[in-house]
Amino acid sequence: MYKLVLIRHGESTWNLENRFTGWTDVELTPTGVEQAKEAGRILKVEGYDFDVAYTSVLKRAIWTLWHVLDQMDRTWLPVVHSWRLNERHYGALQGLNKADMAKQYGEEQVLIWRRSYDVPPPALDPNDPRGQRQDIRYTKLQPEQIPLTECLKDTVARVLPFWNDSIAPAIKAGKRVVIAAHGNSIRALVKYLDNISDSDIVGLNIPNGIPLVYELDAELKPIRHYYLGDAEAAARAAAAVASQGKA
Amino acid sequence: MYKLVLIRHGESTWNLENRFTGWTDVELTPTGVEQAKEAGRILKVEGYDFDVAYTSVLKRAIWTLWHVLDQMDRTWLPVVHSWRLNERHYGALQGLNKADMAKQYGEEQVLIWRRSYDVPPPALDPNDPRGQRQDIRYTKLQPEQIPLTECLKDTVARVLPFWNDSIAPAIKAGKRVVIAAHGNSIRALVKYLDNISDSDIVGLNIPNGIPLVYELDAELKPIRHYYLGDAEAAARAAAAVASQGKA
Repeated sequence: MYKLVLIRHGESTWNLENRFTGWTDVELTPTGVEQAKEAGRILKVEGYDFDVAYTSVLKRAIWTLWHVLDQMDRTWLPVVHSWRLNERHYGALQGLNKADMAKQYGEEQVLIWRRSYDVPPPALDPNDPRGQRQDIRYTKLQPEQIPLTECLKDTVARVLPFWNDSIAPAIKAGKRVVIAAHGNSIRALVKYLDNISDSDIVGLNIPNGIPLVYELDAELKPIRHYYLGDAEAAARAAAAVASQGKA
Repeated sequence: MYKLVLIRHGESTWNLENRFTGWTDVELTPTGVEQAKEAGRILKVEGYDFDVAYTSVLKRAIWTLWHVLDQMDRTWLPVVHSWRLNERHYGALQGLNKADMAKQYGEEQVLIWRRSYDVPPPALDPNDPRGQRQDIRYTKLQPEQIPLTECLKDTVARVLPFWNDSIAPAIKAGKRVVIAAHGNSIRALVKYLDNISDSDIVGLNIPNGIPLVYELDAELKPIRHYYLGDAEAAARAAAAVASQGKA
């Protein structure tokens, strides 16, 4: 049996401001830093250890990982970065306030943008300065690989090749893996692992900074999963994520 | 022409306490964090950029690198860790105060331990709890690769294979390289690059947290080298390193 640990980054400045973030590279808040450190402390106390860490190319996930590794005395572990673990691209909504959008377009429309499996938000204009086509960390990608918007289905489609090509082989090779990523790249993984339907995934929310453990069988099928630490706090944090799109 | 940037970690808790550190894994002080951030800011302002970073498996160098990369918006760069970039192992002196040792054994003896090219300090007992043989980050090494003490000559001998096998090929492949390491692993590299004699290397000191740039020709022979930022501050910092072993 294998164990895989998933951690959504701690609170970011735009989580705090209730803005759609997507691929915008915002920082952790002081609360987010504390959440990350606490995740590392819990993992250490609970006896977890890792051989390799995976994260995105966005600093809120990277710093979360760094604080986790520091608390575990594992700053020296190999870390693999991939844009495929980035947050879902929020298109033209990036930078806008979720509650403002709910007032303007209605809570139902915002819920569709936030949680619909296959309806993406309005796309960014390719020349919009909020886009990533000039960003050096993506210049080796094909232009069509750099999204202008994504629904969760799109996120699943670009996360899974990285899971299949890099992460799953590492786990099967006996490496103990931690992934520090984002609400929707983790939802994409969880949907795949637990074979959650397109309609049921809408109701699944991932709280910030709480380690989510998957126990996997030899074929990497989940046996069970659970949050570490205070289960009620994890449920409250997930409910808070769900309510961000209210007006 | 290639450029290589070397950075000694910022001030550590044991730098501040004037203790021999070696392979002991101590943290940066708040001053050390600021030095690291300032190094990153200078590199960014001066237009430096990197494709890959190398560091040791000791957290004072790793955190220095992380702060540098963060200031440069390059938290997502690949980082290669190697024990071969660790500080020189200080043997049985690890943890002891440099000035106390100067009072007890004389400044001349301490200078020999600190700067002699080929006289190592007294060795740690293999069972000394200050040793690294039980440390998980070294368990894949042969026991004889884990030092019980080192003179600079020993440090040169274990740094150079990593330079030759990993760093030099990366530079020749056109990758822009930054190395965040330690006073003596950097002295080892500098001695090799500049072909400094065994006697002259005794007088060379590397200040904390100031980027040292080497311009290298196609064969990686140095054309020139210089510190970034305030040259006088760099000289004062190097002089302060030199005077640490006074009683």
